[in-house]
Amino acid sequence: MKNESKRTGKRSVTFSHMPCIISEASIAGKKEGEGPLGKCFDCIEEDPMLGKNTWEDAEGELQKRAAQKVIEKASLKECDIEYLISGDLLGQMIASSFGTMSLNIPMFGVYGACSTMGEALSLGAMLVDGGYANRVISMTSSHFAGAEKEFRFPLAYGNQRPLSATWTVTGSGAVIIGKKEEDKNPVHICIKGITTGKVIDYGIKDSMNMGACMAPAAFDVIVNNLEDFGLYEHEYDQIITGDLGYVGKDILLDMLSEKGYAIGDCYMDCGIQIYNKEQQDTHSGGSGCGCSAITLCGHILDRMRKKEWKKVLFVPTGALLSPVSFNEGNSVPSIAHGVVLEVTE
Amino acid sequence: MKNESKRTGKRSVTFSHMPCIISEASIAGKKEGEGPLGKCFDCIEEDPMLGKNTWEDAEGELQKRAAQKVIEKASLKECDIEYLISGDLLGQMIASSFGTMSLNIPMFGVYGACSTMGEALSLGAMLVDGGYANRVISMTSSHFAGAEKEFRFPLAYGNQRPLSATWTVTGSGAVIIGKKEEDKNPVHICIKGITTGKVIDYGIKDSMNMGACMAPAAFDVIVNNLEDFGLYEHEYDQIITGDLGYVGKDILLDMLSEKGYAIGDCYMDCGIQIYNKEQQDTHSGGSGCGCSAITLCGHILDRMRKKEWKKVLFVPTGALLSPVSFNEGNSVPSIAHGVVLEVTE
Repeated sequence: MKNESKRTGKRSVTFSHMPCIISEASIAGKKEGEGPLGKCFDCIEEDPMLGKNTWEDAEGELQKRAAQKVIEKASLKECDIEYLISGDLLGQMIASSFGTMSLNIPMFGVYGACSTMGEALSLGAMLVDGGYANRVISMTSSHFAGAEKEFRFPLAYGNQRPLSATWTVTGSGAVIIGKKEEDKNPVHICIKGITTGKVIDYGIKDSMNMGACMAPAAFDVIVNNLEDFGLYEHEYDQIITGDLGYVGKDILLDMLSEKGYAIGDCYMDCGIQIYNKEQQDTHSGGSGCGCSAITLCGHILDRMRKKEWKKVLFVPTGALLSPVSFNEGNSVPSIAHGVVLEVTE
Repeated sequence: MKNESKRTGKRSVTFSHMPCIISEASIAGKKEGEGPLGKCFDCIEEDPMLGKNTWEDAEGELQKRAAQKVIEKASLKECDIEYLISGDLLGQMIASSFGTMSLNIPMFGVYGACSTMGEALSLGAMLVDGGYANRVISMTSSHFAGAEKEFRFPLAYGNQRPLSATWTVTGSGAVIIGKKEEDKNPVHICIKGITTGKVIDYGIKDSMNMGACMAPAAFDVIVNNLEDFGLYEHEYDQIITGDLGYVGKDILLDMLSEKGYAIGDCYMDCGIQIYNKEQQDTHSGGSGCGCSAITLCGHILDRMRKKEWKKVLFVPTGALLSPVSFNEGNSVPSIAHGVVLEVTE
């Protein structure tokens, strides 16, 4: 049998076998549960330690619970999953490796900072569409306290945060990608295609303004997606970025506007949706691997299953900094990964 | 067209379209250049800083040079590569993101500690075999000084290293995976299949004895590979682990022997091969993402292109610790990824 190319345009791929999201689960922290999307999440954890002794172990527990929940919701067992594709923000991704260890599922660790859910979905869809797996879990997590410890200051230091800063979401979102013929949901949501990001650097060095760092990466993926698939922006019911926040959103809309695209009325950002800016003191919005993941699994897929949105471009965005790169005076490059989600009969 | 399953046994995949390694490149540090494999590497960098100001930027430069070299050796351009799959050991993988930025290639960041080259090859082979890409670069790097700073002590501290400790390899190895019909090498080396690892934890907490931590992961992948493909161990010309070193090697051979497998005479470990134990004071051997990568690209593929080995099971091994997990008293779990390489007409 000849190997057929599935490439579309310069940067994209189209899936011919309709890999579907057969199950989704979201585990959220207390603050996220109190936000505007609180009712959408499967579980809200009141204890930020999740019964563990360290923030890192707590984040690992979030991943474990998200994976267990998504498997349970699909009436499957752990042994039914052929690959786990998972990542987080911590150095050497210890939330993923320690958290998922007991699941006993072959694992690919992935890292794209807060864009990781887009990467995990992209690779998961290729593995199922290509026949390499029947079912893959794509999953990410983040934890406010763990991220502050890793990237910024100890919580007890009580540092002031500028208005451009975002608040790392505590939560983990997981999906099972499987074959359409196995999808028992009344409404099927398939991953129709992907547009993969490059590392993009506009030279911005302010780690407290990650929205500005990431907007060019989102711009690059959205423009390439529309060009590769030959779409007008309004053929999507929603174009959804990961965690640009209020600052990054404005930059993105300006950049797209200069290029002739007006997405304002069909656009949302997970980081803006997840908190109530005034009441929750979260400044520019939410961020972290878990931000786009729980918004996808709790809110976006729910609206798609209700057919309120039928075609969505989901673009998680990531700022590729580390405490070391920042302290050495480097800029904050970024990456985004685009995933086309479509309701299908 | 129906989506055919390519799964083989419980844990493995067979590739029907013969994704081939169409080019390989290795950039090594000075110490690696002075070791037994010194003559195999494409470039030996005398300057450990590679003209940069920090160890992290130096490691990024290793990746950049490896990618440029592997593209040049294939007489291709950067725009001919559809995906770059890359990873390293540093927190938030800054060697990969900063080093490869200027290449302008869509990127998937991957992390499996020192097993990362196995993960990058596995995913790269699926993307090419599945028709999602015509050419993928799979690449990893490590740098002795960067790894010491990240995981252990500042170099100037001059700490004593136990005999079970390994020496992180300075180097970066890259391959281009492409379609067989495009492979201009006189001898084709295809990726015939993969066996993907799980996170395995035997509870060992000694980060200065990573060989002992990783041996169970290598054992798991080798046994599952042989079972899934229905092979005797001697049907491989070589079974090659990543960086178990002398301590891990003995544990692996003991574990396999108990299971009835005797691979001693067709087995090697990249970490053992890369340094001269007596003359180079490297104790248990070499380690790091770059260890298996440059041994693959410099030595293993060369012996296969000369048809000295026709069928190889390549099993990079990774210890999933971070400075935080270690300091919090956690164990060192591990993972390995198996890749079946075969000379084909």
